[in-house]
This record gives sequence, structure tokens and C-alpha cells, in this order.
Amino acid sequence: MNRRKVDLLDFIEETCRIMRGHGLFLVSSGRGGRPNAMTIGWGLLGTMWREPFFAVAVRRSRYTHGLIEESGEFTICLPGRGMERMLEFCGSRSGRDLDKFKELGITPVKGISVEAPFIGECPVHYECRVAYKVDVKEGQLDPSIEREIYPRGDFHTIYYGRILGVYAEEDAEDRLLS
Amino acid sequence: MNRRKVDLLDFIEETCRIMRGHGLFLVSSGRGGRPNAMTIGWGLLGTMWREPFFAVAVRRSRYTHGLIEESGEFTICLPGRGMERMLEFCGSRSGRDLDKFKELGITPVKGISVEAPFIGECPVHYECRVAYKVDVKEGQLDPSIEREIYPRGDFHTIYYGRILGVYAEEDAEDRLLS
Repeated sequence: MNRRKVDLLDFIEETCRIMRGHGLFLVSSGRGGRPNAMTIGWGLLGTMWREPFFAVAVRRSRYTHGLIEESGEFTICLPGRGMERMLEFCGSRSGRDLDKFKELGITPVKGISVEAPFIGECPVHYECRVAYKVDVKEGQLDPSIEREIYPRGDFHTIYYGRILGVYAEEDAEDRLLS
Repeated sequence: MNRRKVDLLDFIEETCRIMRGHGLFLVSSGRGGRPNAMTIGWGLLGTMWREPFFAVAVRRSRYTHGLIEESGEFTICLPGRGMERMLEFCGSRSGRDLDKFKELGITPVKGISVEAPFIGECPVHYECRVAYKVDVKEGQLDPSIEREIYPRGDFHTIYYGRILGVYAEEDAEDRLLS
């Protein structure tokens, strides 16, 4: 594996395209714990506080929420071709009940700039450290969005992850899920 | 002017590239008031709550802050070639003191999907309605960022603008500032 550090903008269009299509993997692990991956279809990318940032939303009921609270880190991994079923699996099962990496036969690799692991089989990944977080609460959002997204009050925390590095394999462009 | 609605992803890379270079125009106007433009170098783009979003940070001391609070809308306008000095001007002067549109001889055009105006001379613009906002406060951010960005406690509000449309002129790609 030749994974090189690339510019924030090199995969920004692809990242947003895949995110609103099949989704991306959000990977985290608590202090010393086993890794876990969930599937995300939402995220905001760009510059904030003079640094590159990737903001993700995690419901407070989710297993991943506890892991990010513990570790303060996460990675975002872009799926390769043929990983559609893995995205479905990670989006429908909870890491409380099973080890998704083992079930799927994918490889957790310790991050280059963070302790959080990334998925070795993913051609591109972002490494992030939480620098700010916001708990979305009742009565703050546009009411039509609140009704549609939070009918049961299961609100998100938005984690602002400072991007410490974007890493891509040599042949990443050919291997990414379209 | 042939301004057509384009896909969120069509100019995402260019938007982030210009944003971290010369900057973008953030345009707003209070209820019935005159338009104003400030220059921004920070912003987050992508999908949140199943919708396209552009999040921008505005210090609560700024003239623009009051305008967005009043109107709940803004546009983000991508500068064309030769607009570097306008970006410098809008980034260093306050709309409290002068009418920047008049000073610069640029044209406010009422938005297509919002009341907020855009700059007619800009080849691409985003039209946004605030759906969520967060007041950044003391003691919430990573301490090193807080020290560097807020030495005088002049905190930002982060406005999450739901993107109602991205509009581009036919020849936008050739005219954008690089």
C-alpha cells in the first residue's frame, strides 16, 4: 500500500458525490477499544478557524457517539467499488451487537496522524480530531426539518473534526465507488 | 445574463479553492435595507438534514451579523477574474460606514429563490436560507484554536444556510478567479 498525503481539495467533489450516493464510512474506536464503522450520508467540508474541517452528525443514541466522546477522533473512509453491501451493513447494524470489521473481513489500520483507525481496503481516507461539537436540541432548527428528521427527538451531535491529513492510495481515482 | 441552476457539486472544488485563496463574497441585506457584502475565507459545504448546506461564520460584532439575523438569508458569490481588489475592500471596510455596492460600482440583483441579493458581476452564486445557527462561546473550542482566533473574545455565529439553488452563468468556468 502506497498511501500518500494529498490536498484537501483533491477528492472533495468525489467525497461529496459518494456521500450523497451510497455513503461514506465514519470510523472510530474508544480508548483502547475495538474499531467500529457506521455509514454516513451527511457531512460538511471546507475551512473553519483557518484549518481544514470535516463536520459530521451522529445521533446521541448511537454506539459511535460514545466512541467519539471517549476518543475525540474519527476517520472518514471513502468506499471502493464493490463495497456497496458493506455500506448497507454498517448503516443498518450497531457496533454494540457485533464487530463489523470481523463480520465484513475488513482491516482496521491505525491512523497516520491520529489513533483512530481507518479501513485499509478504502482507497482514500480523512483523519480528524474533534475541535468543536454542538448538540442539536429541540426548538433550534427550522421547524419543517425538525419535524421530518427528529419525529422521536433522537437528536444529533455535530462533531467538527479538524482534518489532520487526507490520504490516498496511488490508484485511488480508479478504485473509488462511483 | 444567462444564469442557470446547476448541481451542488459542479463548483464545489472551485468554491473551496477560491475561498481559501482570495475569498468569497457573503452578501446579505436586512429587511428592506441596502445590500452589503463581506469577504469570507471560511465555510463548510455539503449535505446535512438531507439537504445541501453552506455553513458560514460571522463574528457577532459585524454589520453582516445583524443583517442575517434580520433577514435569515444570504448569498455566497464567487468572484470573477479582476475582482481581487473588491474582495480586499469588502474584507477591510464595514457596511456600517459606507455602501460597498455603490463604492465598487457592482450590481445587487434580487435572488432567484431568496430575497437576499447576489452580485450581478459574479459568475456563480449560492442562495441560502438559515435553517440552524450556533453561537460559538468561550470554553467550547479546542483551546489552541480559541487562543489564536478569539484573543479578544470576539466570537462567531455559525449560520447553516440551506442551499436553495446554485446558479452559474454560461461562461462561468472561464471567468472565475483562479
